[in-house]
Order: sequence, then C-alpha cells, then structure tokens
Amino acid sequence: MNKLLYGVAYYYEYLPYDRLDEDIKMMKAAGINVVRIAESTWSTYEKQEGQFDFSTVIKVLDAMEEAGIDVIIGTPTYAVPSWLVKMDPTVLAVTHQGEGVYGARQIMDITNPNYLKYGERVIRKLLEVCRDRKCIIGFQLDNETKYYDTAGPNVQAAFVEYLKEKFNGSTDAMNAAFGLDYWSNRVDNWEDFPDVRGTINGSLGAEFDKFRRGLVTEFLTWQSNIVKEYARPDQFITHNLDFEWRGYSYGVQPANNHFEIAKEALTVAGCDIYHPTQDELTGAEIAFGGDMTRSLKQNNYFVLETEAQGYPCWTPYPGQLRQQAFSHVASGAALVEYWHWHSIHNSFETYWRGLLSHDFKENHVYCEAKTIGRDFAALSPALCNLKKENKVAMVVSNDALSALDWFRIDTTAEGPGKTGYNDVVRWMYDALYKMNVEVDFIEPSCKDMDRYQMVIVPALYAACEADLQRMKQYVADGGYLITTFKTAYTDENVKVYHDAFPHVLSECLGISYSNFTFPKNVKLSGTADEQAELFMELVKPEGADVLVSYDHYAWKDYAAVTRNHYGKGIAQYLGCKTSEKYLQKLLADAMKEAGIADTVQNTEFPVIVRRMKDENGKRVWFYFNYSHTPAEAVYAGADGVYLMKEDQTFPGINVAAGEKLALGSWDVQIIREK
Amino acid sequence: MNKLLYGVAYYYEYLPYDRLDEDIKMMKAAGINVVRIAESTWSTYEKQEGQFDFSTVIKVLDAMEEAGIDVIIGTPTYAVPSWLVKMDPTVLAVTHQGEGVYGARQIMDITNPNYLKYGERVIRKLLEVCRDRKCIIGFQLDNETKYYDTAGPNVQAAFVEYLKEKFNGSTDAMNAAFGLDYWSNRVDNWEDFPDVRGTINGSLGAEFDKFRRGLVTEFLTWQSNIVKEYARPDQFITHNLDFEWRGYSYGVQPANNHFEIAKEALTVAGCDIYHPTQDELTGAEIAFGGDMTRSLKQNNYFVLETEAQGYPCWTPYPGQLRQQAFSHVASGAALVEYWHWHSIHNSFETYWRGLLSHDFKENHVYCEAKTIGRDFAALSPALCNLKKENKVAMVVSNDALSALDWFRIDTTAEGPGKTGYNDVVRWMYDALYKMNVEVDFIEPSCKDMDRYQMVIVPALYAACEADLQRMKQYVADGGYLITTFKTAYTDENVKVYHDAFPHVLSECLGISYSNFTFPKNVKLSGTADEQAELFMELVKPEGADVLVSYDHYAWKDYAAVTRNHYGKGIAQYLGCKTSEKYLQKLLADAMKEAGIADTVQNTEFPVIVRRMKDENGKRVWFYFNYSHTPAEAVYAGADGVYLMKEDQTFPGINVAAGEKLALGSWDVQIIREK
Amino acid sequence: MNKLLYGVAYYYEYLPYDRLDEDIKMMKAAGINVVRIAESTWSTYEKQEGQFDFSTVIKVLDAMEEAGIDVIIGTPTYAVPSWLVKMDPTVLAVTHQGEGVYGARQIMDITNPNYLKYGERVIRKLLEVCRDRKCIIGFQLDNETKYYDTAGPNVQAAFVEYLKEKFNGSTDAMNAAFGLDYWSNRVDNWEDFPDVRGTINGSLGAEFDKFRRGLVTEFLTWQSNIVKEYARPDQFITHNLDFEWRGYSYGVQPANNHFEIAKEALTVAGCDIYHPTQDELTGAEIAFGGDMTRSLKQNNYFVLETEAQGYPCWTPYPGQLRQQAFSHVASGAALVEYWHWHSIHNSFETYWRGLLSHDFKENHVYCEAKTIGRDFAALSPALCNLKKENKVAMVVSNDALSALDWFRIDTTAEGPGKTGYNDVVRWMYDALYKMNVEVDFIEPSCKDMDRYQMVIVPALYAACEADLQRMKQYVADGGYLITTFKTAYTDENVKVYHDAFPHVLSECLGISYSNFTFPKNVKLSGTADEQAELFMELVKPEGADVLVSYDHYAWKDYAAVTRNHYGKGIAQYLGCKTSEKYLQKLLADAMKEAGIADTVQNTEFPVIVRRMKDENGKRVWFYFNYSHTPAEAVYAGADGVYLMKEDQTFPGINVAAGEKLALGSWDVQIIREK
Repeated sequence: MNKLLYGVAYYYEYLPYDRLDEDIKMMKAAGINVVRIAESTWSTYEKQEGQFDFSTVIKVLDAMEEAGIDVIIGTPTYAVPSWLVKMDPTVLAVTHQGEGVYGARQIMDITNPNYLKYGERVIRKLLEVCRDRKCIIGFQLDNETKYYDTAGPNVQAAFVEYLKEKFNGSTDAMNAAFGLDYWSNRVDNWEDFPDVRGTINGSLGAEFDKFRRGLVTEFLTWQSNIVKEYARPDQFITHNLDFEWRGYSYGVQPANNHFEIAKEALTVAGCDIYHPTQDELTGAEIAFGGDMTRSLKQNNYFVLETEAQGYPCWTPYPGQLRQQAFSHVASGAALVEYWHWHSIHNSFETYWRGLLSHDFKENHVYCEAKTIGRDFAALSPALCNLKKENKVAMVVSNDALSALDWFRIDTTAEGPGKTGYNDVVRWMYDALYKMNVEVDFIEPSCKDMDRYQMVIVPALYAACEADLQRMKQYVADGGYLITTFKTAYTDENVKVYHDAFPHVLSECLGISYSNFTFPKNVKLSGTADEQAELFMELVKPEGADVLVSYDHYAWKDYAAVTRNHYGKGIAQYLGCKTSEKYLQKLLADAMKEAGIADTVQNTEFPVIVRRMKDENGKRVWFYFNYSHTPAEAVYAGADGVYLMKEDQTFPGINVAAGEKLALGSWDVQIIREK
Repeated sequence: MNKLLYGVAYYYEYLPYDRLDEDIKMMKAAGINVVRIAESTWSTYEKQEGQFDFSTVIKVLDAMEEAGIDVIIGTPTYAVPSWLVKMDPTVLAVTHQGEGVYGARQIMDITNPNYLKYGERVIRKLLEVCRDRKCIIGFQLDNETKYYDTAGPNVQAAFVEYLKEKFNGSTDAMNAAFGLDYWSNRVDNWEDFPDVRGTINGSLGAEFDKFRRGLVTEFLTWQSNIVKEYARPDQFITHNLDFEWRGYSYGVQPANNHFEIAKEALTVAGCDIYHPTQDELTGAEIAFGGDMTRSLKQNNYFVLETEAQGYPCWTPYPGQLRQQAFSHVASGAALVEYWHWHSIHNSFETYWRGLLSHDFKENHVYCEAKTIGRDFAALSPALCNLKKENKVAMVVSNDALSALDWFRIDTTAEGPGKTGYNDVVRWMYDALYKMNVEVDFIEPSCKDMDRYQMVIVPALYAACEADLQRMKQYVADGGYLITTFKTAYTDENVKVYHDAFPHVLSECLGISYSNFTFPKNVKLSGTADEQAELFMELVKPEGADVLVSYDHYAWKDYAAVTRNHYGKGIAQYLGCKTSEKYLQKLLADAMKEAGIADTVQNTEFPVIVRRMKDENGKRVWFYFNYSHTPAEAVYAGADGVYLMKEDQTFPGINVAAGEKLALGSWDVQIIREK
Repeated sequence: MNKLLYGVAYYYEYLPYDRLDEDIKMMKAAGINVVRIAESTWSTYEKQEGQFDFSTVIKVLDAMEEAGIDVIIGTPTYAVPSWLVKMDPTVLAVTHQGEGVYGARQIMDITNPNYLKYGERVIRKLLEVCRDRKCIIGFQLDNETKYYDTAGPNVQAAFVEYLKEKFNGSTDAMNAAFGLDYWSNRVDNWEDFPDVRGTINGSLGAEFDKFRRGLVTEFLTWQSNIVKEYARPDQFITHNLDFEWRGYSYGVQPANNHFEIAKEALTVAGCDIYHPTQDELTGAEIAFGGDMTRSLKQNNYFVLETEAQGYPCWTPYPGQLRQQAFSHVASGAALVEYWHWHSIHNSFETYWRGLLSHDFKENHVYCEAKTIGRDFAALSPALCNLKKENKVAMVVSNDALSALDWFRIDTTAEGPGKTGYNDVVRWMYDALYKMNVEVDFIEPSCKDMDRYQMVIVPALYAACEADLQRMKQYVADGGYLITTFKTAYTDENVKVYHDAFPHVLSECLGISYSNFTFPKNVKLSGTADEQAELFMELVKPEGADVLVSYDHYAWKDYAAVTRNHYGKGIAQYLGCKTSEKYLQKLLADAMKEAGIADTVQNTEFPVIVRRMKDENGKRVWFYFNYSHTPAEAVYAGADGVYLMKEDQTFPGINVAAGEKLALGSWDVQIIREK
C-alpha cells in the first residue's frame, strides 16, 4: 500500500432515501479513502432467480470513482435470498439445534450444491460488472465465514469419508484412536456411523470440528479461485476473519482456521475487531486481533470492520475513536475501516451504529473521524508499511481450543465448566500486553520457532508428537520456552497420553505430574497473598528448580512454577493459573533471564508502548494512554522526533532518549527515531 | 349497576364432593352476591363430540337463583377437550416453539376452523340453556384471550394476505418499509415469503405481533356477536383482559389490544389483577390495572379475577384483603371477584388458593371477606357508579411495546437486554401513583387529548407521523406534554426516522440529539447523588431550558432534562431514566408549572389518596395506608363525613377540611364531602 | 461374606495398550481382591449383530483366577451398540425432549422389544462364557437403571392399559381421581388419551412417573430371572442403585424404586455413592446412601462404585481415601469398590479419574489405597458381617418425591420453585447424622414400624389413607412420631385431601391448619434469632402443646412446633423448616422424652460415631474426625480394645469407658467392646 487506508462499509442499498452525493461529500470531509460494498445484499442484486440488477453497485462505483475513493468489493454470499431457500430448503444448515429456519445471515450449509451453484453465479455476475473498474483495489471473499455448525446428512456423510481416509478405511484404527469401546460406542461398519450430533466422545466431536474448519478453508479457496479469474494483479483478495465472540472480539476463532485460510485463499489477511470502549477501552483486543492477523502472513493486514459508535455502551468518549485508529496502525494495520458509514434504520443491527447516527448529521464521533482522516493523510508517508520485529512468540491452536471446549477446565460432576482455551490464552496475552511485551502468534507446527528468543505456549492441550518434539528441540537449541498446565495432555485425536506429563516436554521441563485438582485457598509460597487459581497440577520436580510451591497442608510438596536448563535453553512451567500481576512478575524474571528484558517494561498499562520499523529501517514508537487520567512515561527509544503530539501531526519537536513524556486523556503520541 | 358486586369464580365441577348447598350458605354469609361459572369446563359439558350435558350448569343456576346470587356465564372456549385435539391436532397452535402438545389451556390456534366450529356450537348450546335465566346478569367471552404465539402455516398465510393489503400488493413497498434489503432478506414474490418465525427483522416481527393482536380482536368480536344473539338488553358482555405477567399483573399486555377489544366486543370492560401482598402490597398494581381498564370505555369496570389467598407468598396479612377490595372500588371497579371460591384439589393451580382453603373450613381470609361483604352491602348506595375526573393522562401503546421487545433498551453486542416498554411505563406510573397523582390512560391516536391538562408519554418508541403531529398540536394549543428518551424514534413500521430526534416533537421540545449511550457513573448535575440510569440521550438544547445536565467529563455538554415553551403550552423532555424519587421531584415541579399541583401531593406513599365523584356530584375520598405501621395524613377535601372508619361503615363522624387523619395498619377510610 | 471386599471396576477394553499383568500386580499390591467387569462394553463383545467375541472377558477371567482376585460380572446392557440403533432407531427412548439421538449411555427405551431381544441374547452369550468360573462371585444386573424419561408411543399405550386396570376401565373414576375436569382435561374415551408429555396435571404426571418406576422393576426382574438360570447358589445377584444426583449422590432416587427392585430382583443390595471430598467431606452422603441401601434388605450391602480421585475437585487430601473406606464399612458395606481402576484416555469421563491416573504410575491416592487393602485384609475377621441395631427410622417415599416434584414447595406465580422432597429429607437426615443419631429407612407401607422407638416422617406429601392410619396406630401403641409440614396433604393420586390437615394424623398430632405461607422475617418465639424457613403452616393447636410459635404480628397466634400425647405415644409436628442447629435441639429434646437419648449425642460433627454389632454380639465403635483439625471425643462404649488406631491395625491397646480419644486429621479409630 502506498497510503494508510481509512474506510467504511457502505450500504447504499440500506439508505432510507438516496443521499449518495451527500454521503460522499461527508466521506471526503472525513478523509475516508476507501469503501467496502456489496457483501450483504445478494437479494437486492438478484431479486428473483436469474434476474440480475447491479444498478446500485454501478451507481456507487461511478460515484466513488469520480470522488477518488477506492472500493473493496465483497462477494454477496453470506446471506441468502428468500427465493433460494424456497427453491431448496436444504440450503439452510441442519445443526445441533435441528432444521434451520430462514431469517438470519450465516445459516447456510456451506457445502450445499445449490448454495454453491447460485452463489458462484451471483459472484461471477457481480465480478463481470466490476471488471475494469479502476477504483476497485481488491476483493473480500464472503464475510466472517465459519462452518455455522452445519451438520446435516450430507456433511456427516462427507465426514465419514474423511474418517475413512484418515484411518485408511480401518474402523479398528478409529475405534482405538477415539476410544470408542467406551460406553459401547464402537463403530465396526462405516454404514453404522451414528448421527455425530449426539456423540459424547470428545475425540470424535473435536475431529468433527476440525473437519468442518476444513470445509471453511475449502469454501473460501473455492471463492478465491473464482475471484482470481477476474482480479487484476494489483487487486488483493482478502477476507474478514473474526474472533471468538464474547460480546466482543475475544480470542482464537473456534469455527475456522485463520492460518490455513490465509495461506490457501488470501493475498492480504483481514479481520474485524470489536471491543469495549469508554472506561473499558484497554487496547488489548485491538492488539490481540492485530498481532494475530499480522502473524497470518507475517505482513500488514486490514481491519475490515471495527466499531465507530457500535452499541450504546460503546459510544466512544472524546479522543477514543482517534486513539483506536492509531492503535490499529501500531499493530501493523494497513486499513482501518468502520462498520459502518451510517446507522441502519431497520432490522437486527439498528443499534450497531456507524459513523453517522440515524439522523445523518455531523455528530461528535464523525467530527473526531475527520481529524483521523486528516492525520492519516498527513502521516501516510511515515506510517505506511511499518513492520514489527518481535522476539517473543505465542503458540495458538484451534485443535487445543476444540479439545478444551469438550473438556472445559473447570468441569465437575455437576456439569460442564465455563473456562476454556481462550481464557488461558488471553490471561497470558493480556499480561504481556500490559507489561509492553509485543508478540507474534505462531502455529504449533511452526518450523522456524528459532526466529524467536522466547516461545510461550498456553494450555496446548491437544498436540501431536511431532510438534512437541520440535518444541523440545527448540529448548535444546537454546530457546526459552514457557508453558502451562494442560499443555501436552492429549494427542491430536484428543486421546490422553499415557506416560509422564506433560508428554514429551516432561524431559526438557524437568518435571512430571500424575494428579491435579482445583485450588481452594491455596496460597503461592513466598507471596503475600497470591492464590493458585482455576487448576493446579501436583507437579513433582525431576531436575527442575522449584520457583514457587503451594502453602497448603495437603499440597505443600508440589511445585507451582519450575524452571529447567535443558540443552542450551531453558524451559519454564506454570502448574497453575495465577493473578495477572503475578504472572507478569514471573514473565519479567524470565525475560531478564532470556536476555530480552526491555526498558519499556518499566512502563505499564494504562500506558502502552508499541514499536514498528519503517521502510527506511527507522524505529517508530507509539505511546498510548488508555485512561482519562493523564500519565507520564519515559521515552524508551533513541533520540527522535515527534510525528504526532497533542493531536498535531508533524510538530517537528525533538525527543531525547529517556525524556519524560506527558500523556493526556486517551492520548496517542508517535515518535520516529532519528 | 345498582349495587357493588362482590363475587367469586365458582367451579362446581371441580369439587371433590357435592357441597353446593353448603357453599351457597357460606357465600351468603360472606356477602357474595355474584358468581362466575362455566368458562373452564368445555370437556365436562361435551364429554364426547356432540354429546352435551349441562346438568351441572343448570343445577348451579337453580341454586343461585334460589339464593339470590347473580351469575356471570363464561363461554367455555379457552381450554379444549382432548377429543377435539384427537380429531384435529391442528387445533393446537404451532408456535415459535414448534408443534403444540395437549395439556395446558390457551394453547389453541384461535383461527383454526374446527376450533371455531366446535367452539361456536358449545357456546350456542350453553347459551340456549342459559336463556331466560333471571340470575344471569351478563356474559364473559372466553378468558384472558391472547394470540398464544399462534404462528402456523394458516396464520402465516393470512399474515401474507394482510401484508399484501397493507402494501397494496407491492413487495417493493414492503421491502422499503421494513428494510428487507438488509442481510439479503428481500421478498420480491409473495410466494417466497419465508417462515416469519425465523425473522431477525424487528419491523416484520413487530408487524406480525400487531397482526396477531388483531386476530384476538376478531376472535372476541366473533364471540360477542354470537352472544348478542342470546343476550337480553340488560345483560352485559365483558371479557377478562389481563396484563403483562411478571409473576403478577405488571403492565401493558403485549399479546392483544385492550382498547380495540373493548371497543369492538365489550359492553363493560373487565380484567384480572393479581399482585403481591404481605410486605409487598402497595396498591400500585390495583391502581394501574384499574386505571387502565376504566380508561378503555371511560366508565366503571369489572375486576373479574383477583386473588383471595393465591400462592403461599400471597396469603394476606390481617386487614389486607379488606384494603384490597376497597382499593379496587377506589379506582372505579363495579365488581370485585375472587379467583376463586375454593382451592382446587388437583392439577396446575392447586396452590393458587381461593377464599376457602382445601379444607373448606372458615379460615382467617374467609372471615375477613365476611366484613367486606357486609360493608359492600351497606355502602352500595354511596359507592355505586363513582366516576373519576383526572387532569393527567398517560399515553400507552402496544406498538411501542412490541417494538421495544424487539429492541430492548439495554441490548448490547453480548445479547438482548431485559428492559422494555413496561419498565418505563411503570417507572412513570408508579412515581405518579406514589405522589398521589391519578391518571387516565389514552392511546397515541387519541383525538381529544385536550381533555387533559397534562399528558405523559413514556418511551413511545414507535409512533406514526399523525399521532406525533397531534401531540405537537396539543402543546401548541396549551397542553403540558412530558415525554422521555426513546419516544418518537421509529415510525409505525419500526423504521427509525432519519431526521432530528425526537421526530416531529423535536420542535416543540426545543431539542435534538444524534447520539446516546448507557450511563455509567453519570451523576445528574445539581443533585447530591442522583444518577442517570439505563439509557441516556446526548440531548442538545435548541431553544429549550436545560433543567438538569450530566456531571461527567465526556457528557457534560448535554442536557438530561429540558423544558420548552411552544405555542401556548410547555413540553418537557427526560433524556435519561432517573430514580423514582427524582422523577417525582421533576413531575411535582411540572405540575406546579401546569397549575395542577394539589395538596394531596403533600401526602405520599405509603399513604395513598384516591378521589371519585358520586352520582350526586359529591366527592368521595379514599385514604389508604399501605403499611403495617400507623400513619397520619391531612384530609385534603372539603368538610365531609365518614362513610367508613376503623372497619365501621356509616359512623357518621364529621371530618373538617385539613383535619389530621390517623390511619391504622393496612387501613382504609372513606369520606364523602358534604 | 467371609472377608471385606475391596474392589475396582476394571475396563481392560479401554486400555490404550495391553497391561493386564502389570495392572494385576499393582492391584495385588493394593490389596484389591475383587474386580467388576463387562457392564459397559456390549459393542466390544458384539461388534456386529450376532458376531460375538468375549476374548477380552476370558482373558481377564483367566488372569484374575490365577491372581486370586474375585470377579463380579456386569450384564452389558446399559449402553447399546451403534448397529442396534441403526437397525431399529426406536431402541432410543422418546422423551420429553423428543426423539433420542445416539451417543450417551442410558438413553434406551427399556421396554423396546428389539432392545430386550438383543439384550437378552448378549447376556446369555456372556453368561455362557462365565459359567463354571470359580472367580466369579456374583452378578450385577445392568447399571444404574432408571426409566430415562422413556415416554414414546408404546410406553404411553402401556400406561393407558395400566390406567384402565387401575380404574377398572372407568374413565369417570380416573377423571375424578386426577381432577381432569380442570381446564377441560377430561378423557371420556380411552382412545382420546392425549400425549401425557404435555400434561399440566400433577396427579396424572406423578402417576406416569410411578408407572415408569414400575417398568424399571420389571426390567431388572426380567434380567434377574435370566441370570438366575446361570448363577450358582453361592453367587449373588446385585444391582448398582444410584441416588438423586446433584453433582453427587444426594437423596432418594426419583426414577426407580429401590425397595421394590431390591425385593423383586436382587439377593444383595448394591449402590454407588459419590460425594464431595477435600474440605467438603462430611461423611453424610456415605452414611445416607449406606443407611438407605442397608435398609433395603436389612442386611450388609455393596458399594459397587465410589470415587477414587473422581473430578479434579475431588482429589482426596491425604487420609481421606482411607477415612472414606472405613466410613462405608461403618454403615454396613461388605464391599468398597472404586470407579475405577484406571483413568480413561478418551471420551466423556476422562476427568472422572480412577485409582490410577492417566500415567498408570503409583500416585499418592493409589499409595493410600495400599494401606486400606492391607488393613481390610487384617481386619476382615473383626469387621465382616457387622450389623446395626437402630432405634430410629425415617420414612421415605418415591411417591411423595414425585408429587413434590410437580408441586415444588417454593413455587410462586413467577414459576416453579426449586425446593423439593429430598431437601426436606436431607435437612432432617443431616441433622440426625451430625448429632450422631443413626437411622434406618423404611417405606410408608412398613408393617412393623414398632421395631423402632422413634419414627421420623419428613414431608410425606402424598400418602394413602392406610399408611397414615398405620402411623396413627403406631403412636397410639406407644411410638414417638415426628413429622413435618407438607405431610399427609394429598392422597396416593396426589389429590389434596379435603378435611383437616394433616389428614388422618391431625387427631394424633392434636392440631390442624387451613392456611400456610412462606415465612419472611418470621422469628421463632423464645429463640435468639432462629428464623422460620421455606414454608410455614398456620397451625392451630387442638389439644397439642405449643413448643414454639411465631414472633410476627400477623402470625403470632399460630404454632410452629407442637407435641401431643396420643394413646400411649407422642406425636410431634414441625409446621415450618428451621436451621439445622435448631432442628437438632428439637430432636434432642424429643429423644430425651422418648427415652432414647444417648451419650454419643454429646459428641457432634465433625466427630462422627457409628456403631455396629459383630458376629459375636460385641459392639464395634467407629470414631471419625471429618476435619483437618485434630479433635477430642469421649469414648461412649463399654471398656474395649482398639482394632485400629493411628493407621495401625490391632494395636491391642485398651480403651476404658469414658476415656478421651484424640482424633487426628481426617482420622478414623475402631474400638471393639470387650
């Protein structure tokens, strides 16, 4: 990209009256230089089967082209027309909840032949209209594609074929791998395969989830191949990947595999990030989603959707919209795009408000966007194509996530627990974020882990032998590995290993354990009042140093935190969850030991420091104050010059190494080293 | 009516043994002068299809006639016999939960042809038996009729016909009105209309609710027309309207339209009112339900059901049953009827106890009823046909209710909220009730609003242009209008307006707003510690006086409460919810300004004052103490004489204007001005 | 039995690799002398219809026989193979949740002909293999059999036949007994019988539950008869009865009838008991389940399953596994068997851990088991066939349980309550347990109640006339009866009685009541701050002494607790629930009056005393300290000698009557009187 992209999703089709010219005028005034269109309105373009009408698309393209605003075309397949469902009701996914019923988006069986047939046709018709359009800079495939719990007969039949292949046709192999002797669940004839929706076998269930994540990759690759037939070389193909949703973008997505999709189907990674604001704005979700999406292709990425006003609880305080925009840039975003331009006047997302409120007037949020647009334009030369050079990586895994969904950490005989994989991932990520340690994300199968000086592995519950061996080798070769309870407990089929735990890693960690429990009133030894939380393994040191143990008469002989020298490296183990603060202390000590401690760790949340390297190899420092209360921070870079301060770009003021920075309410300051 | 009616629902068919004579003896002893019978026992009267047996009805009629007790006949259609469902299972409503299953009452599709056919026949057969019976003073149509979420194919087909008519056959008009371009939801061929149960479009969903409220009106009008063929001119036709249920009668009913039903199908309005007792008895539900039902036909009304003992938590304290009975009268009730005479010995409502417990013996509640019967008889000449003359009206709307059910006020991206229309209605109603301001209820379409000096409009979220224009005119003509957040946000199709808010009213209120949020730690300016609650609009005064604003750094520039002179009148706006106490302060100030402040407002809850005018034009004052703790109150009327004091009727004691009244535990005193 | 049995459930079929020899070596080391096998793995033995392979059973039998470990064979019918469901999907029970879906265990229709046909065949095939095997000491029928909410058409048809028989073909009799006139629910033609799953009639619903409990008895009797064809006279037939599940074994089982099953189908009663441990270990569940199961056949019983490690929250503290084992013995258990030997590596119960963890290594729990095995062996001569001689019995009833499930005690108009029968049973049982009063359980129909000097009847809500008359006679004959609120309120058809309450017992209790309520801030008279809880009846004494009344202005005239002399006996009534402490005070006073107070009541929880009589008629005393904190207790027996102290068996130390015992952390000591 040769400029910072500042965009909105634009729905001309949803307007209560035609105000295209007025909208464009207001966009220009706000520095909006890109719009995403078309991804939600199949039924507008094909009102009845085979009757195509792209007049609204053409009209918007004409107007944008004239206005000099770039366009991203979304393929309109994530919500299906009523006529298609009337024609073939099996277009709707059969799920664990039973037959589907028309209404919402993202309720299709993404393998349904009619859905694919008519979907392909509308995509091709749209792309024909879009061909040769200068203003179109790229394409978004579908939107937030997941497998939507599709589990109908055809999907299950395909799953059985997949299993046949996986197990070379041997039901015995499957029965052994999944432990189907249990509760008389064996399948000794593929014809007998029962409805997988009823299974109580987590190995089978997690495999079905993995299989269905594969369907998403297939689907998006299929779309990508169609789009490639029409796209120019300068046009990108992206997708709006989303995260585990807990009322906001929380963690690793269970229902698709970001890494695979990015590799197979995309030229630029993209995502949406929604997050709390007002007093709950911390920047953590922006950083998490950004770090994750940047890691997919190890390059700059698009924030294809983020909130302008969003739900009423998210109406930003003055300064927050601006701070958020630069937070994305500070993680490597090449595009910050709001969902959406105008608040919609009907239906489900009426209160998921855009830059413009329902009255279309200039409001305080839109007015703040204007300053962002202005500064994005001014700072584009300086902030384009910034890169990160992180020393720390975190391993994340869809398979571990699915497995821990089946085996929630806090499950008891009273019923399933609530705590899963992402709780542990975010516990560690947030601790690092708030102590100003930046990370990349990598897959368990990562072959060049030694790019990083420290690798952090939260709760990698399900992992294959080969991946674990590679981690062990990473330590032997001089790496610093930190891992936690629940890691390496089962294999890739969610079958618990049957030797010392953590399987394979036991040796490099210098520990093993046989039992575990939930801690109640278990203090960590040598602390004032730090408690073991959530889960504790009764770890026996076998060569490792015991950094912390338990102050409890029953568990006093076990280790809570250990460290072990192995080969040229060091491996640390956390046998229980702790407070975020205490985890930060442990991590800080480990970083010192690993020789990667940094002066920015003297600064801590709510002041957040993010570092990039620009195209000339110069460091660019972002200082954020995620608070209304003004704060101070010591500038940790070499002598530099302000790119932005007090909402002014290019103030040209010098900053000396070690100088004290005064940060205002919800402030962001940007400094480039000289 | 020429006497106060004191009644019970009587189920001779449910008795574990025949005790009709003993029951009548005990009724007479308690002053019961009317019973309602027959509405629940279709299967007893028609044990098999076409085999009618009304012997129990005839037996009860004979006995009541002899005893001089009046009878209300209920048509027995709200619970269907097992043979009818066996014959035609589609009699049961298909709902959002799927196919119905036999068992409970009120689970029918009220449009099912067989239900209507066999329902009509049993009604006619019953009415033939009841013809020429002196003791029958009137008829109750069905019972608590609602649409029971009926949503089967036939209902949906009728809905599509209704939409065709509404939109003159134009799917384009419908798509525009409901915003169906959103998420590819367009319907461009009526044949494609999808199952509306799956819709995520609140405009379509709320329209379906409105359509189904219409089905209830049609159904009751159809029954009314049947009954009219048999009824004498002196016999009334009523219905037992019920309220939104939150474990007790809470607010405006979502699943039918009281105003329409009363107009189309009834000669006397009726309702049931169930409410907490013991320490939670406030009289608010009795007043709310009474004010609402009185307003339907602007006349006296029937309380066709209210609790005697009810659930165990409702067993009344000594004095409460008596206080409750007179509370109904003080709102204009012409009948106070208990559900029910005797506690039932089997099935669902075993613990919804009647005047008699399961042992049929004289118990403390029955004994208290005896004093009520005695006093109703003695006071009938004085308390019959009392009328109200209220200066304040409150606007309520089924459509706003449905709309806010689809768009709960506290909805976030985490999921739907819990707070809807009736929460705001009751917030305002209860504040007024507890400061002793009596109100009538009116519809948004009310054409003679100027009967009232003040009109209060809580959260009228969905309202058509014409209704809003009429309110604006009301202000211009000199009225005092008080309205709140969420008012006038969408049109009658639940499409958000797209100009200044509150649409149309913006001008007379002298304000507008573009944004809103949920308040967190937002104090109201100039108060000790009053907080903005639930929802706050960022109101910009445009001519209005700002009465209160927000003590919050981000929102300090916006108005919380405004007042504006417009034409000859005044319009006040509440941009957020407040505590009940603070709302009372605002309302008291407004009433002073409107010139309708009253000395009774010096008295406040738990002392409640209700005023009526008798047939001779004399004011009758009711003083209640809704508390165990004795209280004092200053008598606010002109010189008068006690009708009732210390549980004595006609004590003939004088009361001077301004005299101090001493009110005992759960006391009621009645004074007539001289 | 001639020895204490110490066992494990053993699943050779679930092992991730063959380690049979190693397992047996470790079992022997731990003193395990019995294993239960085969009950979960039908699909392993019959991989396809008719293809039998019992090689794993044979292999295990061979090995156990050689090792001298006894074997219990479980019939493998509680979990069905996938091929059977493929062949006949109706094998799965249709329930209130609709059609079944394959996956879990215990989801069959236990009346399905194919299930019975193929079930019988696999049982017979297995038993043929097991015939003439010395090591097999007995058989367990199926596992934790209940009716699994089976409610499909065939079950409902059978239910209608059952009703025809019950009511001699008269629908009128049924309509009267169940009160079906209510809400037009009459059935006047058996053909019209509606789907009972929809019923709102608790009489009908509870009858259906009772009918289905009968199906379980029939099913197990059928299995028992099959097994009897193969069993030797020295082999027992047992079943693993389980209790109401609240995340652990809580109370009386709703979905079968333990008394009936034990009588019809078993030679030795068996059960499973799961309970909290760590700081929540009280021994109460072990005692409750043990007292209940011992009472079934008034003899020693098997604990066929109890936890070793169980869920993570249950990992026992040091000393607890040992204390638990002896707690079972102290209630009369002849077998203590863990579920299960090894933790499973796949599927639903991966975290319900066995003696061995997933790593199969010696862990701290297994090591503790070794001491138990050692001591069981040493103490077998002394502790085999111990008997109880209790003076107090508690009446429990499935029918009262079902009835109170339909009519939860704390139900309000807001919805069904949460508090049912077992809450009251456990309130009373736990109070007795913690004051060291041991009880037997009896049925309401018990004919020889006079075996007991005191009979306690908690909330016997549904009871037939005859049973109540027998209780009255028990008092007349000199018994001491204590009963509570809700007792004798309805007949066996859950039809409320219609005379004075408690029906029949009113006279011997010397009270009656008409009304009741939920207490709010109602203090018990004469106490510091004891509150009436849950439910209070407004009891009028009619001859009884009022022991406690209510400190509340509205209820002050009613009695809370009464005592009445009737005939030669005494009857006491509790009109409300109280704190456990206060109940203990009431019970202690009553025991003094009944002449059965005991010095062990001077000792109280956490010190628990349990008494048995050995085969020589000598008393054996068990002293437990259910606490980490050491405790003291006065030895309440005659001069004796220690069988076990400080984890040492046969220390041969004398104990004098009245001597002070020092109990350690989670300690158990055993003393035999000389």
